[in-house]
Amino acid sequence: MPDIIHRIGVEHASPEQVYDAITTIEGLSGWWAEKTGGDPTQGGVIEFRFAPGGFDMKVLELDPARRVRWEVVDGPAEWIGTTIHWDLRQEGDYTIVLFKHEGWREPVEFMYHCSTKWATFLMSLKQYVETGKGDPAPNDVQISNWH
Amino acid sequence: MPDIIHRIGVEHASPEQVYDAITTIEGLSGWWAEKTGGDPTQGGVIEFRFAPGGFDMKVLELDPARRVRWEVVDGPAEWIGTTIHWDLRQEGDYTIVLFKHEGWREPVEFMYHCSTKWATFLMSLKQYVETGKGDPAPNDVQISNWH
Repeated sequence: MPDIIHRIGVEHASPEQVYDAITTIEGLSGWWAEKTGGDPTQGGVIEFRFAPGGFDMKVLELDPARRVRWEVVDGPAEWIGTTIHWDLRQEGDYTIVLFKHEGWREPVEFMYHCSTKWATFLMSLKQYVETGKGDPAPNDVQISNWH
Repeated sequence: MPDIIHRIGVEHASPEQVYDAITTIEGLSGWWAEKTGGDPTQGGVIEFRFAPGGFDMKVLELDPARRVRWEVVDGPAEWIGTTIHWDLRQEGDYTIVLFKHEGWREPVEFMYHCSTKWATFLMSLKQYVETGKGDPAPNDVQISNWH
């Protein structure tokens, strides 16, 4: 099954700082979707809302400053049941983020779109942690007619 | 075998304009690597040069304003033998670009890096065609300690 994979390095940042940005409502709303709510603790469901809809992610795993795993429990049909993996580690002055969106049933055109869109959101995460200001929806980087 | 896939839409642009940006030395040096040379015609080899090295791509297929296919004939070991596919089509006021970097033997960490890096170069291609100015290497967007 095809996966979306990405790697960024967040400069002058500890894994703890990046972990906070992906495991708290304040952090997630700073780089992904301003309208983020729900329960970000283990077993909770985080609700991300965008103009055209949203995603609900169940928090499967929280290993502080090392690893986070979510399962998509609501959202676009192609996303439901897929999982999102975040692996963090320190490398010199950077926190390296390995990202994987796993379990797509087939490489539909929407998956091509999501791969590029994830990359721009990961750059937003990097900028958010490095500077305090990301580009979350609805002011996210537009990549195409699908936004 | 895992693939890197992306989708962008280039606004107010025809497929012919995007095709020119990925099939001419002038175009390729406007968004990917300023140091681009070689022969961009069918069967030719295009040479892309970056600070840490470069890639040589054999032009396997040129279907004007529709499809381009390259094979990596020199470059990092993980890239050699992989193929790069560009599919273009018009959709309203956008030219949609479906991109695939196919044939990776395994999802090594370098592949995670290249997926994100391709996304930023595709955004550079979009900007180049839309505005006349991209962000080619050596002034490309830095995504991590691997640049």
